[in-house]
Amino acid sequence: MSSNLSFVLNKPGDVSFEERPKPTLKSPHDVIVAINYTGICGSDVHYWVHGAIGKFVVEDPMVLGHESAGTIVEVGEGVTHLKVGDRVALEPGYPCRRCTNCTAGKYNLCPDMVFAATPPYDGTLTGYWAAPADFCFKLPENVTLQEGALIEPLAVAVHIVKQANVKPGNSVVVMGAGPVGLLCAAVAKAYGATKIVSVDIVQSKLDFAKEFCSTHIYSSQRISPEENAKALLELAELPDGADVVIDASGAEPSIQTSIHTVKVGGSYVQGGMGKSDITFPIMAMCIKEMTMSGSFRYGPGDYPLAVELVASGRVDVKKLVTGIVTFQEAEEAFKKVKEGEAIKVLIAGPNEQL
Amino acid sequence: MSSNLSFVLNKPGDVSFEERPKPTLKSPHDVIVAINYTGICGSDVHYWVHGAIGKFVVEDPMVLGHESAGTIVEVGEGVTHLKVGDRVALEPGYPCRRCTNCTAGKYNLCPDMVFAATPPYDGTLTGYWAAPADFCFKLPENVTLQEGALIEPLAVAVHIVKQANVKPGNSVVVMGAGPVGLLCAAVAKAYGATKIVSVDIVQSKLDFAKEFCSTHIYSSQRISPEENAKALLELAELPDGADVVIDASGAEPSIQTSIHTVKVGGSYVQGGMGKSDITFPIMAMCIKEMTMSGSFRYGPGDYPLAVELVASGRVDVKKLVTGIVTFQEAEEAFKKVKEGEAIKVLIAGPNEQL
Amino acid sequence: MSSNLSFVLNKPGDVSFEERPKPTLKSPHDVIVAINYTGICGSDVHYWVHGAIGKFVVEDPMVLGHESAGTIVEVGEGVTHLKVGDRVALEPGYPCRRCTNCTAGKYNLCPDMVFAATPPYDGTLTGYWAAPADFCFKLPENVTLQEGALIEPLAVAVHIVKQANVKPGNSVVVMGAGPVGLLCAAVAKAYGATKIVSVDIVQSKLDFAKEFCSTHIYSSQRISPEENAKALLELAELPDGADVVIDASGAEPSIQTSIHTVKVGGSYVQGGMGKSDITFPIMAMCIKEMTMSGSFRYGPGDYPLAVELVASGRVDVKKLVTGIVTFQEAEEAFKKVKEGEAIKVLIAGPNEQL
Amino acid sequence: MSSNLSFVLNKPGDVSFEERPKPTLKSPHDVIVAINYTGICGSDVHYWVHGAIGKFVVEDPMVLGHESAGTIVEVGEGVTHLKVGDRVALEPGYPCRRCTNCTAGKYNLCPDMVFAATPPYDGTLTGYWAAPADFCFKLPENVTLQEGALIEPLAVAVHIVKQANVKPGNSVVVMGAGPVGLLCAAVAKAYGATKIVSVDIVQSKLDFAKEFCSTHIYSSQRISPEENAKALLELAELPDGADVVIDASGAEPSIQTSIHTVKVGGSYVQGGMGKSDITFPIMAMCIKEMTMSGSFRYGPGDYPLAVELVASGRVDVKKLVTGIVTFQEAEEAFKKVKEGEAIKVLIAGPNEQL
Repeated sequence: MSSNLSFVLNKPGDVSFEERPKPTLKSPHDVIVAINYTGICGSDVHYWVHGAIGKFVVEDPMVLGHESAGTIVEVGEGVTHLKVGDRVALEPGYPCRRCTNCTAGKYNLCPDMVFAATPPYDGTLTGYWAAPADFCFKLPENVTLQEGALIEPLAVAVHIVKQANVKPGNSVVVMGAGPVGLLCAAVAKAYGATKIVSVDIVQSKLDFAKEFCSTHIYSSQRISPEENAKALLELAELPDGADVVIDASGAEPSIQTSIHTVKVGGSYVQGGMGKSDITFPIMAMCIKEMTMSGSFRYGPGDYPLAVELVASGRVDVKKLVTGIVTFQEAEEAFKKVKEGEAIKVLIAGPNEQL
Repeated sequence: MSSNLSFVLNKPGDVSFEERPKPTLKSPHDVIVAINYTGICGSDVHYWVHGAIGKFVVEDPMVLGHESAGTIVEVGEGVTHLKVGDRVALEPGYPCRRCTNCTAGKYNLCPDMVFAATPPYDGTLTGYWAAPADFCFKLPENVTLQEGALIEPLAVAVHIVKQANVKPGNSVVVMGAGPVGLLCAAVAKAYGATKIVSVDIVQSKLDFAKEFCSTHIYSSQRISPEENAKALLELAELPDGADVVIDASGAEPSIQTSIHTVKVGGSYVQGGMGKSDITFPIMAMCIKEMTMSGSFRYGPGDYPLAVELVASGRVDVKKLVTGIVTFQEAEEAFKKVKEGEAIKVLIAGPNEQL
Repeated sequence: MSSNLSFVLNKPGDVSFEERPKPTLKSPHDVIVAINYTGICGSDVHYWVHGAIGKFVVEDPMVLGHESAGTIVEVGEGVTHLKVGDRVALEPGYPCRRCTNCTAGKYNLCPDMVFAATPPYDGTLTGYWAAPADFCFKLPENVTLQEGALIEPLAVAVHIVKQANVKPGNSVVVMGAGPVGLLCAAVAKAYGATKIVSVDIVQSKLDFAKEFCSTHIYSSQRISPEENAKALLELAELPDGADVVIDASGAEPSIQTSIHTVKVGGSYVQGGMGKSDITFPIMAMCIKEMTMSGSFRYGPGDYPLAVELVASGRVDVKKLVTGIVTFQEAEEAFKKVKEGEAIKVLIAGPNEQL
Repeated sequence: MSSNLSFVLNKPGDVSFEERPKPTLKSPHDVIVAINYTGICGSDVHYWVHGAIGKFVVEDPMVLGHESAGTIVEVGEGVTHLKVGDRVALEPGYPCRRCTNCTAGKYNLCPDMVFAATPPYDGTLTGYWAAPADFCFKLPENVTLQEGALIEPLAVAVHIVKQANVKPGNSVVVMGAGPVGLLCAAVAKAYGATKIVSVDIVQSKLDFAKEFCSTHIYSSQRISPEENAKALLELAELPDGADVVIDASGAEPSIQTSIHTVKVGGSYVQGGMGKSDITFPIMAMCIKEMTMSGSFRYGPGDYPLAVELVASGRVDVKKLVTGIVTFQEAEEAFKKVKEGEAIKVLIAGPNEQL
């Protein structure tokens, strides 16, 4: 019951299970968490396949995983809001708390961020994890540990929707119906959006989006961005354009379509990751006096709101869980996700009984 | 003294002087203004040369000009804040006042805008002009009518800087040192920016910028956007990037450089007009969680603030005036501006003595 | 079927029914609306009883009423979005569209506002009403005309909640459980508030609030504001205070309690009307660095959102309707409302069959 | 040259000089600063006279002082941006960095703040001081250590002006012409305010304000708040009211006058400390739809901007320095400040030669 078995990426495509030393408390403000469930993120798969994302290159063996929930097994003496046995969602990135971004309320932009499963830092596909207590968020009784492992991608969506400044009555188009796109649609609904249009090229994903929360779905066609924008706005009866468009795809044609979909004076948020440079309709953005912003991970208040949205039933994250596997089946689970056979797969912790 | 001679663009490159009927009051809220001075804008020259800007095509003869100051000669009975003899800066676009953009405080985005010298509407290179009184801004005693003709481009710059949310202590990089770029730099200074870096490819423009208000100047080189960004940030001692970057050039390399120049969490405003589609570093924008926005003309409060900035001496617009010509010399003045020999040329009204 | 019978306040307590001339179109942008239903507002009752509200004094006979829905019977030639037969909610105040508040997107603050049933302007308890088309909001098929008469108080609540900047996950305390307080609570829920605490001194109102939308109710006691604040925060399990407190009561003890209820860094909105001057805990407000704001009527986007909230089922306004009476029973209805026997009473238009 | 002599408040009116142990580095992110100059703040004097401010009561002997500049004498191994010999302004309050206010960018609202010379924490009227390096702000070469001691009150003013959201062209009224009121006026000017009206009851303070930066001065009279508001608005030619009013006095009549001075839709900030509860014109605030906020100490970015404003010459803080005394003369200096004979008195550090 106390293995610290870890799922380690040695080099692209080469993983192994290793028993690593259990972490210990390094600060009175830290806690030790036994990992119960960890979701597989696209970035985990990307590291596994390519060994790098942009300038982040895996040079030494690195434990994968960063979407986790667990149970507190030890608390530092300065910790007051958590106790042994509490079930928590783990926020997996720890900022310096001292730079101008940290003190200004934008810790997600900290240049010295220590983020799980981002080289050179190990991730959470392990037995035990040490974390600052204020980055562990207690799950209410009606939220399961499996749902807890979905708080991370939900917090990504919360951050994106906050960047988009979605308000009640808004129309929101979400490009991409993968996990983050679906969650953005659901969060936009919780923010009061009236029309929520999910856009993708895979019909089964769109069907899921419709069932999950979207009011409209649009299947992108092999036509120009302007034509796709026109067709989707007609479908959703939005003659003046959408108040907000969120890209959760990172795909060049989706981003182009997005700009033509936003109404005059509307907002756009780049949430998805993709090619560094794309052909972009800059004058359309200028003349419509659009507001655009990027969205990077999550910041103050995002995890608590994500927990709240699940607890109150406003976002039913468990619908996204395609399957749960044992720790020993981690590699197979990565394969399934890579092949697109699953929305979200959870891997049980090494000490967890399924 | 009461000619309504007008400077008419018939088709690309073909202009003529025509005596047009004097306008009359159509609403009790209107005034009639005798035009004293009109500046030549790049868009006037573009219509003169090409007969169109984007989807705006000159199909019937159109009076040019929209950067004007004049003197009130008649007021409607509902007008209370202006009287005959008042000298005013003319805001040249009149919105519907009824659409959602108008009532929401964004009249510059009104789809039914009637804008001077934008087809099919006539411009202000004429003798007399009818306007809603609330779009005429009284010039204080210490502001000349010639300065008054510069309020229009200054209002463009004010709107851009507002979109950029410049704050005291900020570092602001302005791409382009033409009239609008220079005025953006000056307005940024009035907003309290500490470092103001003007960027251009023409050294004489940069020299003027340095004298006008910029704290630093950078001459763009034939290197990559990343390298230009790095070099200009080193020059300005901004190791973390600039708080705000404003593009007043519309040039693709400038826009690309801009994105690499903005600091993590910083802002970018697209003010300049250029190619519809460009290669754009979208992931840099995303990961830095930048805020971007377009800027289109000017809206509520922009003209009053522009007048105030001139009256208080914070922006010395008269330094931009390269020359003043008679109404009859209008075509030659257009040629000079086209050839880049002048920053800003003013054309006197047909009833004005030089 | 074409009576323009009107319900006129002659002087305090003295009302009469008068056949007035039917209004005609004065602008191509106007419409004529046959009034179907009108709700009675506290301000109508106040004028009826006292003949004045603050500096607004009824000096000449004035038609009462301003919470109305009706049916379009005539449209000006410039009207494109409405046609004869459309059912609409009537926004009853018409701003000048020319002052700085109007153009800046704050038309509710227009100093030249013409507002129904605010002296010297007649109200909507009449047969036919002329209005600018853009102040008439079409009701979707699933919204009844009776619900349409409730859009006005709902728009008041929408404006208050916007001023409060309520966000998903927030805790919101609403002082007062009259119509506006109830609607504020419901709108706060639509904005994603998680805990909504209604506070009043009348238990039956609190019981209704609980059934209508509030998660918690608190009955104010004859104790100090600090003690009431402490007790209600304990009841709602909000140890750090409430994110947002809205006063919809205007009562001095409620306002005092509110300030002690807001968390450090939280927000307060004064929505209710009451005594001009009160004893106020200014240092608590200062040290907690609270944000406070007033809320006055409604502005851009408030009516459309109110219609949307009803159409989407997020605010069930018909639950507030205590009764509907014929036009001839108007005076009795005023008596009932004055005596507090009803939440909201609707008066049918003079041409309406019940 | 290495005394750690400290100026200790034992109980109200009873101070002594004590040699205390020199502080040592407790974290690799800390530095040790030799104190060069410390300004006397009203709160220091208040503790000296009364032994308490609100709920903060001096129960054990406490070193006074918190407005200090000094020289780095030792740096922790994790400190990169400061080195021995650097001259710095000291931010004297250290938040927990872990609570929701801290991570959200509002560390000034941290409930666990350790603030110099606020019981039970010792202040900076001592020889050496240990501080987190990120709360020490390097002074540029052209800023003296004496000016550096004024950064603290200037940061208070910066925070107030930020809360007020002052913008170029605004009219700003500042109630009170003590050090913080004067600095608010100067910072408002740096933010681009056009009209700056200082209000006080002491003519000599007003004369100083006029010379320091205000465009208008108004001497409050023994008339009603409405009348004072009317008179000051007439004097400053602000017929519609002021865009922004800042109270830096804490005086009940000033606060009342303020509310009647703000324009419809304008802003008010409570910066001054005074009576807990006052008579307040709540309905004027409501109907004008004003925005009000408190301001408490300073937060992210305030110190850097304060340093920048001094370095760039926009706020000439040295004009506020009435005198500089030796450490041994501290008690006499307190007496002078108490008697209102000085704007700002600096006390040299115990190791400083005058």
